[in-house]
Amino acid sequence: MLNFDFQNKTKIIFGKDTENRVGQELKIYGKKVLLHFGGGSIKKYGLYDKVLHSLQEAGIVVVELGGVEPNPKLSLVNKGIEICKSENIDSILAVGGGSVIDSAKAIGVGAKYDGDVWDFCLGKAEVKDTLPVGVILTIPAAGSESSSGSVITKEEGLYKKAFGSPLIRPKFAILNPEITFTLPKYQTAAGIVDMMAHIMERYFTNEQNVDLTDRLCEGTLKAIIDNASTVLETPDDYDARAEIMWASTIAHNDLLSTGRMGDWASHNIEHELSGIYDMTHGAGLAIIFPAWMKYVYKHDLSRFIQFATRVWDVPMSFDDPQWTALEGINRMESFFKSLGMPTTLKDAGITEDRYEEMAKKATEFGPQGNFIKLEKDDIVNIYKLAK
Amino acid sequence: MLNFDFQNKTKIIFGKDTENRVGQELKIYGKKVLLHFGGGSIKKYGLYDKVLHSLQEAGIVVVELGGVEPNPKLSLVNKGIEICKSENIDSILAVGGGSVIDSAKAIGVGAKYDGDVWDFCLGKAEVKDTLPVGVILTIPAAGSESSSGSVITKEEGLYKKAFGSPLIRPKFAILNPEITFTLPKYQTAAGIVDMMAHIMERYFTNEQNVDLTDRLCEGTLKAIIDNASTVLETPDDYDARAEIMWASTIAHNDLLSTGRMGDWASHNIEHELSGIYDMTHGAGLAIIFPAWMKYVYKHDLSRFIQFATRVWDVPMSFDDPQWTALEGINRMESFFKSLGMPTTLKDAGITEDRYEEMAKKATEFGPQGNFIKLEKDDIVNIYKLAK
Repeated sequence: MLNFDFQNKTKIIFGKDTENRVGQELKIYGKKVLLHFGGGSIKKYGLYDKVLHSLQEAGIVVVELGGVEPNPKLSLVNKGIEICKSENIDSILAVGGGSVIDSAKAIGVGAKYDGDVWDFCLGKAEVKDTLPVGVILTIPAAGSESSSGSVITKEEGLYKKAFGSPLIRPKFAILNPEITFTLPKYQTAAGIVDMMAHIMERYFTNEQNVDLTDRLCEGTLKAIIDNASTVLETPDDYDARAEIMWASTIAHNDLLSTGRMGDWASHNIEHELSGIYDMTHGAGLAIIFPAWMKYVYKHDLSRFIQFATRVWDVPMSFDDPQWTALEGINRMESFFKSLGMPTTLKDAGITEDRYEEMAKKATEFGPQGNFIKLEKDDIVNIYKLAK
Repeated sequence: MLNFDFQNKTKIIFGKDTENRVGQELKIYGKKVLLHFGGGSIKKYGLYDKVLHSLQEAGIVVVELGGVEPNPKLSLVNKGIEICKSENIDSILAVGGGSVIDSAKAIGVGAKYDGDVWDFCLGKAEVKDTLPVGVILTIPAAGSESSSGSVITKEEGLYKKAFGSPLIRPKFAILNPEITFTLPKYQTAAGIVDMMAHIMERYFTNEQNVDLTDRLCEGTLKAIIDNASTVLETPDDYDARAEIMWASTIAHNDLLSTGRMGDWASHNIEHELSGIYDMTHGAGLAIIFPAWMKYVYKHDLSRFIQFATRVWDVPMSFDDPQWTALEGINRMESFFKSLGMPTTLKDAGITEDRYEEMAKKATEFGPQGNFIKLEKDDIVNIYKLAK
């Protein structure tokens, strides 16, 4: 087990009607908030009115900035930063999914920085300060509600890049599973793949003797898998929605990475898909992850056998252990299909003539992954396995 | 799943040589520290010198208070409070196991309170403030290094009582598995039972649909069970010690209680054993927990079957499900025995003529437990099952 520091201060406020507590939680951080959100869906289902009511009751002045798109754009971040500076904003409230929260995080650090916020994505600047960010989560997927990361897309050149710091973990995250009842099936499914991917990126490590975190990863995956069909078939099943929602946070709050180095190649390879084609991140991961696994599983067959037997209940074949490992990958791929996710690049309309370009871009700043370091040609091969 | 708030701000600093960081971590909280510890064992193995060196390098003035005993005593807590007040102490550093940390927590709140610190244990006062407490953990067991609770024994009348508040979670906890290499076998084993008990108190709940936390509980128990024999047979196995040490924290940092109401009867029933007989808490739990399970398992047979199959790998008997449940309890009892723990009151020299008195005391402030409410006579019956 590797040495590690672990601290996650985000206050999780979980359950029915918890959005009504947002004013009380936010007023600790000042009187003026930037309310950040995406499209109009928060207005459609009454959430917007509840939030405004709670903020007004707490005496908080609201400045609004909506319009966050999936794969949140740098231009809107820059607009948010300008507003925060000119309006002397005290805090940011992100009401939405990972894109809104990531956008809010970038605005938060940008508002306290004199240079270009893209510097953080390029590793040219380190986060030293941020406006406090609070969250009301509407899409369980990205885990951004208590994570230390943010991913932003720069329109010019279509670059999708991440930055991170413990300082950007939200101060609080309100998680009411009822808010997710109206989430479309496709987004629910993509969210499930995304949270599973966050766990698997951590699970596939070269670090040996990490039993406890292995078990926690496997248990969280199991809980997600067991509740997935229920949330798709019965979208207003509170209990199943609650399991999925809490799992999305656990998957990415860094507990599951303690003592180990994660991989993250699949995420970075996928960024080219969602960055260029603007596809849902989870859908892209459903395509990339099985292919990545097929490409790398021989590097640590035991780990893939453990994954197959413990997570997918594949029987151990002592005669043919490789079969066990591959059957685990197959079952995962079938599961993604059963959720209605694409599992090939063709499904997503991405043709072979783009592979080279995407792989080149994915490795522009160096090889990807830690489990195995992947060069450009490896990534082309993975795209071919995902054909 | 129940609504919940979850926040645990304790910074975990885990791994080799991490005790050398204590000065840097502590100086954030001021210049003068109360160094709190138990017997001489910290001096024997060089830890004391390392700690003093790190504190001195950070320019911290040290006032010492050693002598914490297992089942930490109110009289020493009061002495600590006096010192903190008269010496204007800024923070407390607990170097030890659960007893030392619990004692430090009580000193911390007492130093910021005008009345009698025992008021907190009696529920007569609520924690509003505390001196910051830092921890260097030497015994993985109690989970006090990031928990919100403390248990103190009042010598007069031999009362062992708990109090709690999120405010008393330590600011940081340094966990170096190497420090536990010299831990005696008995203490290692008692610690293992204690951390397992913390999980099982949470696991046996009446709340339905808590799949994720069930899985996390089961996974943590599995990791503990799988590493237990290694740490007993090869005490300097770093990896196994690391698994056990991190598991002790996870078991009791409140993540595993999210969305559910735990039981805690066994802990409270056990307090009479360790309070009166001054026995190691984990050893007392090894006696009480199997008996409690045998007494209550019919209340939710399914949950006990799940426990047996998932944690103890008992095959499911569809003809005789009750057999499966009981076999799980039996395997747990055998496991405790294999660790060298007592599993009967007789093993611990406690005779039947004391049962009434202990049960009466355990229920002095009302019935115990949430899974099933236990009255005095129930507890006598549990003692009889543990005979």
